[in-house]
Amino acid sequence: MTEPSITDWAARIMAGDRRALALAITLTESQRIDHRTEADALLNLIWSRTGHAIRIAISGPPGVGKSTFIETLGTHALAAGRRIAVLAIDPSSRLSGGSILGDKTRMETLTRHANAYIRPSPAGETLGGVARRTREAIALCEAAGFDLVIIETIGVGQSELTAANMVDMFILLLAPAGGDDLQGIKRGIVEIADLLLINKSDGDLEIAAKRSETDYANALRLLRPVSTDWQPQVHRCSALTGYGIDIVWSTILAHATAITTSGERDRRRCQQDILWFREELRERLLNFFEVDPSLRLFIPRIEEDVRRHILAPPTAAQRILNTLPLPRER
Amino acid sequence: MTEPSITDWAARIMAGDRRALALAITLTESQRIDHRTEADALLNLIWSRTGHAIRIAISGPPGVGKSTFIETLGTHALAAGRRIAVLAIDPSSRLSGGSILGDKTRMETLTRHANAYIRPSPAGETLGGVARRTREAIALCEAAGFDLVIIETIGVGQSELTAANMVDMFILLLAPAGGDDLQGIKRGIVEIADLLLINKSDGDLEIAAKRSETDYANALRLLRPVSTDWQPQVHRCSALTGYGIDIVWSTILAHATAITTSGERDRRRCQQDILWFREELRERLLNFFEVDPSLRLFIPRIEEDVRRHILAPPTAAQRILNTLPLPRER
Repeated sequence: MTEPSITDWAARIMAGDRRALALAITLTESQRIDHRTEADALLNLIWSRTGHAIRIAISGPPGVGKSTFIETLGTHALAAGRRIAVLAIDPSSRLSGGSILGDKTRMETLTRHANAYIRPSPAGETLGGVARRTREAIALCEAAGFDLVIIETIGVGQSELTAANMVDMFILLLAPAGGDDLQGIKRGIVEIADLLLINKSDGDLEIAAKRSETDYANALRLLRPVSTDWQPQVHRCSALTGYGIDIVWSTILAHATAITTSGERDRRRCQQDILWFREELRERLLNFFEVDPSLRLFIPRIEEDVRRHILAPPTAAQRILNTLPLPRER
Repeated sequence: MTEPSITDWAARIMAGDRRALALAITLTESQRIDHRTEADALLNLIWSRTGHAIRIAISGPPGVGKSTFIETLGTHALAAGRRIAVLAIDPSSRLSGGSILGDKTRMETLTRHANAYIRPSPAGETLGGVARRTREAIALCEAAGFDLVIIETIGVGQSELTAANMVDMFILLLAPAGGDDLQGIKRGIVEIADLLLINKSDGDLEIAAKRSETDYANALRLLRPVSTDWQPQVHRCSALTGYGIDIVWSTILAHATAITTSGERDRRRCQQDILWFREELRERLLNFFEVDPSLRLFIPRIEEDVRRHILAPPTAAQRILNTLPLPRER
């Protein structure tokens, strides 16, 4: 695609064209160098139109009801006049075979609504690739006029931290049950949550949910809040009955107001952009390196010496570095 | 330190001098560029004397009794004439404040034995740093004559996979209890284990341990073995009473024989060395980049444009790359 059509493309995204948006996100997922160049150009053209949305991440153990919760919360936010984009982070989809994409019943209402955009996670990505794609997708969705961006983490392990590093607010959804260990939550995740929600507070589970709410509220008092402008909260809700969803929504708005007013939101986003920049730099540097024609021949020769146990791997790496036309001394 | 003394140092390590070994491992932990250069030289000098040890990783959830198990297994292996090095991988020590180092009762017998060397994990490291240090420590311990190297993973999450990528055999220690989720084991870890051990098969827990043994044996039958030369096994043991430790030891020896005879051990180590080489290359390239004097001035200027939301981070990264004296086109 040539420059003028990239400009057109950007204009269509900014006019709210969903097809242009979807294609742009697909473009950011491509590994091809020419696609990467186009994606860079596109992102730069829409860049001044980004930043106005509330960005939240929603995480929680499998089975806690994240999709249903997002459906219920999203419907509430739509009624409040919001335009909603939901992006999934699922680094495990490579292993699970992308079951998410096949599950057609997920977020049925949101999927059909004109003011909602659901983007499932593509299968076959590394966490690094997911992070890059998701950051670019957030920017593209904002440029397309979505003012509430929800990142849903589906994977395990590192994905919560990855998600927390690209949003304003981190929401952890829990089941009315025992400790974190029993729920398969990685240690430290509770500590980064701005809002803890005990979901499934309905029917037989309501009493257990109340107990969990008290337990976590007590635990939170012992933790130093991540932010100076926001004290993490615990609430109960039920994505099934809708109980507590109004409080969740008003808490999200209160959090957004608190951190925007204090300037913390902008400081945080600044730091996130610098982190993104450094990750991109690292990633591009490595790609760059791999396509250098002379190194493409030299690396396999050095690797052969590593295979034959002639060279220790650190020395082998240093030999490659010594061939670079860059300053070698401090 | 100058070249001749590095040669002396290497000679002392290869003569089994424990102080020279300990200092060398400390050297590999240093971030200083001159230390890195020395560590490279040292490693290269001892490189031909590495590779003869059995390398195993022992992992398992907190509280399963890893330290006691290593103490019991190690004592058994010492009696069989082995020289044992135990290295800890603990990426979480930065958060837990290095409690391991303070815990003086860990592996008391091994600590005092002339043929055993225990190296606790240094606090304050990233997982990448831990992996590099551990790989170099394995090589140094082998050069010093240790013929059984045990990597103990203490942290959570990625550390098991990191450990598995630097050993011949991966042992997972489990408690006689419910499913993996209840034990806080990351999905996929059972699948990479060459040997599953149900520890604490003593007293009241023996019946539960037998049930767990059957459960895991059945589960393993459904999994495709990672190796074509080894079918993963499940055994019960008790680090406390010593029950089953003889079987564990003979299984370790049987595994070593099986993969050595078939050539799988060497193939695996080859791949691990290539992985190590690539990780080193990546790490060094980034460091290299950060110390380039012209880039050290340029990067903060570009970052300022990112902070002021003038440049999208991917474009900012590309601008840096475009300044490099490397080929810019495919």
